[in-house]
Amino acid sequence: MAAFTSNKTHHFLTRKLTTPTRRPLKSTRVRMSLQESGPSLAVVGVSGAVGQEFLSVISDRDFPYRSIKMLASKRSAGKPLTFQGRTYTIEELTEDSFDGVDIALFSAGGSISKTFGPVAVGKGAIVVDNSSAFRMEEAVPLVIPEVNPEAIRGFKVGMGKGALIANPNCSTIICLMAATPLHRRAKVTRMVVSTYQAASGAGAAAMEELELQTREVLEGKPPTCNIFNQQYAFNLFSHNAPVLSNGYNEEEIKLVKETRKIWNDMNVRVTATCIRVPVMRAHAESVNLQFEKPLDEETARDILKNAPGVVVIDDRASNHFPTPLEVSNKDDVAVGRIRRDLSQNGDHGLDIFVCGDQIRKGAALNAIQIAEMLL
Amino acid sequence: MAAFTSNKTHHFLTRKLTTPTRRPLKSTRVRMSLQESGPSLAVVGVSGAVGQEFLSVISDRDFPYRSIKMLASKRSAGKPLTFQGRTYTIEELTEDSFDGVDIALFSAGGSISKTFGPVAVGKGAIVVDNSSAFRMEEAVPLVIPEVNPEAIRGFKVGMGKGALIANPNCSTIICLMAATPLHRRAKVTRMVVSTYQAASGAGAAAMEELELQTREVLEGKPPTCNIFNQQYAFNLFSHNAPVLSNGYNEEEIKLVKETRKIWNDMNVRVTATCIRVPVMRAHAESVNLQFEKPLDEETARDILKNAPGVVVIDDRASNHFPTPLEVSNKDDVAVGRIRRDLSQNGDHGLDIFVCGDQIRKGAALNAIQIAEMLL
Repeated sequence: MAAFTSNKTHHFLTRKLTTPTRRPLKSTRVRMSLQESGPSLAVVGVSGAVGQEFLSVISDRDFPYRSIKMLASKRSAGKPLTFQGRTYTIEELTEDSFDGVDIALFSAGGSISKTFGPVAVGKGAIVVDNSSAFRMEEAVPLVIPEVNPEAIRGFKVGMGKGALIANPNCSTIICLMAATPLHRRAKVTRMVVSTYQAASGAGAAAMEELELQTREVLEGKPPTCNIFNQQYAFNLFSHNAPVLSNGYNEEEIKLVKETRKIWNDMNVRVTATCIRVPVMRAHAESVNLQFEKPLDEETARDILKNAPGVVVIDDRASNHFPTPLEVSNKDDVAVGRIRRDLSQNGDHGLDIFVCGDQIRKGAALNAIQIAEMLL
Repeated sequence: MAAFTSNKTHHFLTRKLTTPTRRPLKSTRVRMSLQESGPSLAVVGVSGAVGQEFLSVISDRDFPYRSIKMLASKRSAGKPLTFQGRTYTIEELTEDSFDGVDIALFSAGGSISKTFGPVAVGKGAIVVDNSSAFRMEEAVPLVIPEVNPEAIRGFKVGMGKGALIANPNCSTIICLMAATPLHRRAKVTRMVVSTYQAASGAGAAAMEELELQTREVLEGKPPTCNIFNQQYAFNLFSHNAPVLSNGYNEEEIKLVKETRKIWNDMNVRVTATCIRVPVMRAHAESVNLQFEKPLDEETARDILKNAPGVVVIDDRASNHFPTPLEVSNKDDVAVGRIRRDLSQNGDHGLDIFVCGDQIRKGAALNAIQIAEMLL
């Protein structure tokens, strides 16, 4: 895997890094004991960018498990994978993969989830699915632990049956981490979102293509376009998701529909324009909010400072605001540019700018946080 | 000057290029005659990115002139500059530079404009100023020729006195090229803009820094941060303009105030979030529009297809929409992602995505178009 996708200290990733939000490290003894008594895990899509990050987050948060299956496609099957001092062999995902599995973390694309998610549930596993396959199904909870933990109240390992839980889309998670605390106070009635989305959202291969293309363009060569159908280096373009008949692309519609489901508010009005920018692994979003109740800027800033999983970076004097680089490999979503929207009356509107690590809080971390709630 | 800032065929700039909108070439004979009878020009800041583009546009559009002074700071003075087959010597800008000058094209920053703009006007020149120095002065017209040509009706070379005309900010020009035709039909009441701004807006040195930083980061070296105070390669950040006490930065306030002045509508409500992205020379903008009168998507598309200086790129089936690369070195502003805003009632809202060459229509071309109106 290229430098970009590793967790090694690197200028892409580490400038101005602050300490990640992590649970305090448990002692080895407690950890061993937790691991002995923890659930049996399966990671589906373990060789992908999010799959790798599942392992990093499990390690960083000392997530307990008594066993872990590393599952991937035939292509990766048989390869060794060292994790927490033990070497595993990546196994091919089959219908038999889920025997005895308590929690299955899926991130191998929608069609794999559609095929194997129900299989895992049938075997009694609780599936935390990172794809969009089941998100809008009414019976499937769509969960950001800081936002709507109530959606999986009662879901527990050992509850005697399998279940599907969906991880929201990365853009939705990052947006709602900042918007929800404000929504709770003043009720968001309308939200206009423009995204600045990283390569990582299209997987490790897209990150590698951005790096390759950039080298090629700097050398005056034509850029290799395998993942995307156009030059990405030093360029940006409308999100590559299919465009629907109403002109929105699927990424934008996810923001619209998932927000309504997560907030359990079918009246909230959302529009979004989703754009890919030549950034590696963290998304940014410009979010314009309209509120039912007045909410002044200072109160909003205080609310956000106290919101779990949110860090406020809003230093006007030194022009220091959230950037994708600064949140890369971080757990917290950063919010800044908090200001009263001059185009709305009184204190009924705010503009904010949000950045979050797409692979981490936008995918793997959120899924592991869901898994933690199942224990 | 680095490859990025040249007009040479280059993968940064030329992918999917279509023919630029140019006036038909006049015959040599007509051209000579026009040049003999044309105005005396001065280009202030000729060694900068916009200054160089002034010359390209003069050449491309066969702008007539009987003489041209190449003016810059002491640093560039004395250097030779070949233009249209003639070699000029760059002269140092002084109080005596404007004797006999009819039209002075300024792009050397606000403080140079403040000092030397009035000097040139005192000498009888019409100054077309690309800086923000005079834009909001009531007596100074702020002009996009396709949008508000009436603002300089009666301004002519040979009218017997000097005058100041301001070129709007690049983000404003690019946004209003697309928004104005819709505004004329349905009256825009509110506009929410998020920008994706290229390096070129901060000058040729910023473009070079982005290129240098990108090479450094790819080599695992720390990035050189001279122009900006942080890593720009594979990153993005809130626009580097100073932030005001209301939390908006100056770039954003330009969009708010200049729109009102250009549209001569003090009631239009605008908010903007301005972001720098690692792109070389064309800006993109996500624009959410609210209208007083209904305007359906098809009518909007037709209006934009017929708007001067605008090209519609809106192919949903093949996911082909405007990109900075595709508009680089182009005259036209491209607009796409034209769709009814789902978050507004009926046909009173649209989302659009606009791209325009920041150096060309965002600066030099617009100024030369203004100069053409003076003949």
